[in-house]
Amino acid sequence: MEGLFCNMTFDVTILGCGAATPTLRHNPSAQIVNLHDKLFLVDCGEGTQMALRKQKIKIQRIQHIFISHLHGDHYLGLIGLLSSLHLLGNKGELNLYGPPDLKALLDLSFKVSETYLDYTINFFPTSDKEKQLLYEDKTLEVYSIPLKHRIECCGFQFCEKPKVPKVKKGVISKYDLQPSQIIELKHGNVLTLENGETIDPIDACITPDRSRKYSYCSDTMYWETLIPHIADSDLLYHESTFLDSELERAKHTFHSTARQAAKIARMANVKKLILGHFSSRYHEEEQFLVEAKEEFENVDLADEGKTFSVDY
Amino acid sequence: MEGLFCNMTFDVTILGCGAATPTLRHNPSAQIVNLHDKLFLVDCGEGTQMALRKQKIKIQRIQHIFISHLHGDHYLGLIGLLSSLHLLGNKGELNLYGPPDLKALLDLSFKVSETYLDYTINFFPTSDKEKQLLYEDKTLEVYSIPLKHRIECCGFQFCEKPKVPKVKKGVISKYDLQPSQIIELKHGNVLTLENGETIDPIDACITPDRSRKYSYCSDTMYWETLIPHIADSDLLYHESTFLDSELERAKHTFHSTARQAAKIARMANVKKLILGHFSSRYHEEEQFLVEAKEEFENVDLADEGKTFSVDY
Repeated sequence: MEGLFCNMTFDVTILGCGAATPTLRHNPSAQIVNLHDKLFLVDCGEGTQMALRKQKIKIQRIQHIFISHLHGDHYLGLIGLLSSLHLLGNKGELNLYGPPDLKALLDLSFKVSETYLDYTINFFPTSDKEKQLLYEDKTLEVYSIPLKHRIECCGFQFCEKPKVPKVKKGVISKYDLQPSQIIELKHGNVLTLENGETIDPIDACITPDRSRKYSYCSDTMYWETLIPHIADSDLLYHESTFLDSELERAKHTFHSTARQAAKIARMANVKKLILGHFSSRYHEEEQFLVEAKEEFENVDLADEGKTFSVDY
Repeated sequence: MEGLFCNMTFDVTILGCGAATPTLRHNPSAQIVNLHDKLFLVDCGEGTQMALRKQKIKIQRIQHIFISHLHGDHYLGLIGLLSSLHLLGNKGELNLYGPPDLKALLDLSFKVSETYLDYTINFFPTSDKEKQLLYEDKTLEVYSIPLKHRIECCGFQFCEKPKVPKVKKGVISKYDLQPSQIIELKHGNVLTLENGETIDPIDACITPDRSRKYSYCSDTMYWETLIPHIADSDLLYHESTFLDSELERAKHTFHSTARQAAKIARMANVKKLILGHFSSRYHEEEQFLVEAKEEFENVDLADEGKTFSVDY
């Protein structure tokens, strides 16, 4: 029963998984990562605020927004969403992470509309030169991941921090342990009592759950340099704009095929792969699964409204 | 049967009639004016390209886009739509009319995304200082209309040019009229034949249909100065963000109530009024009709997907 009061939710809800041209089937890129009940918005294509309403997710709950790059299908819903937050009476702070030019875009939009937000946007410029820690709190970390696209582009990685083991209640009461002694055990140290008896932390502690990791790779060509950055992810979202038949086009436009995404997933030893960012030329996506599964078994297709949990 | 080959279509399809905050019921402002089979897009809030798809209107058919002002709910769908036109292989020209700063917004967006359009955008800056002719061709004219809003804002007016009468076929064959003689009659001149006989154009010509006029007033406070600019419109779209109960808020935010829109319609002697730009605080709009009808009878509510024809 220990840990009941710490929310261990870790899931990803797809708001949009289409590519550059939106269709009636797919919105442009956007998703909500719920990590320990904190909501992170990842990319914000046109129509994201409407998609959030449809999923009954209150935009006021979002305190961190990550924009991978400045192609319109990844950010054109942002200004509308930020304006709505203002109109809905938001007064707090919002952290925004994205390419440096994003700031200039927002500044100009708000200037010409004479909009003066009632809340504060803390802007953190990203760089695709190296993996960077963008945000952390007591239990989680968010990193940028360098991707290889036509313009500067970052993926994002959401990680649980290593969890501290808990000392069994029975052990605490049996030996009447003091807080300082509990901390020793939690840190993995053997405890020697006054009577000379020793307590091994392996016996005294409950092994904590493994820390989980979700990696989001929005727009990228097939790029093996990426592999160490996303290695051992429990869940990987990797773009797959095209099928095998458009391999040349994928290369030319700095995008990936389903098969390439699956190869990356296999080489990075991830547990599960989600494919998304489907080109509007395809009217259904079953073939994406077929081609990906020839490389990597545990793969699924993104779709609007679908929630993927990041499992142990 | 004369005139069969000249398309006399004149209608307005609502793509969005919500106000600043989009809801699941209403998109932000956008509408398509079909005038003689030419499509004019009027305002382009977030999600307009998806709304066009839903209405099965090909964005490639739009050659003129009019943006009333730079509040996000009137233009944030534009950059996505222009990008999609490019991705769909558009090679022609597109005329864009809007506030001067719109150009800077587009330039910056295309610069940061390294987008180089395959087609040409001809940008025509509008001004809300006076009514201006923005576009004309053989059969129609489009004007800007100065409005009174929190920032610079124009409405738009779509007019048929006065129609030239047609000479009855029976008259042409009876007198074996030559082209120059037909033109004389069309211009209303009495024709004297070689044998001294005269033909009165009133008898010889078919009286043409009256020229029709549609006025679009996107965001404006109650403003009587507007009346002469929209006088005698066959159809008027006038914003009505609020009901009577929010009269003070309407004034403060430079918007109108349904009653105020109806008063303007009555004083301007328009034939029919459409109300739109409904605040997200209202979950249904019947009361807008009730309050407006106390001032002006022929009024209807905008709604997504509804088409209003501009009748004789």
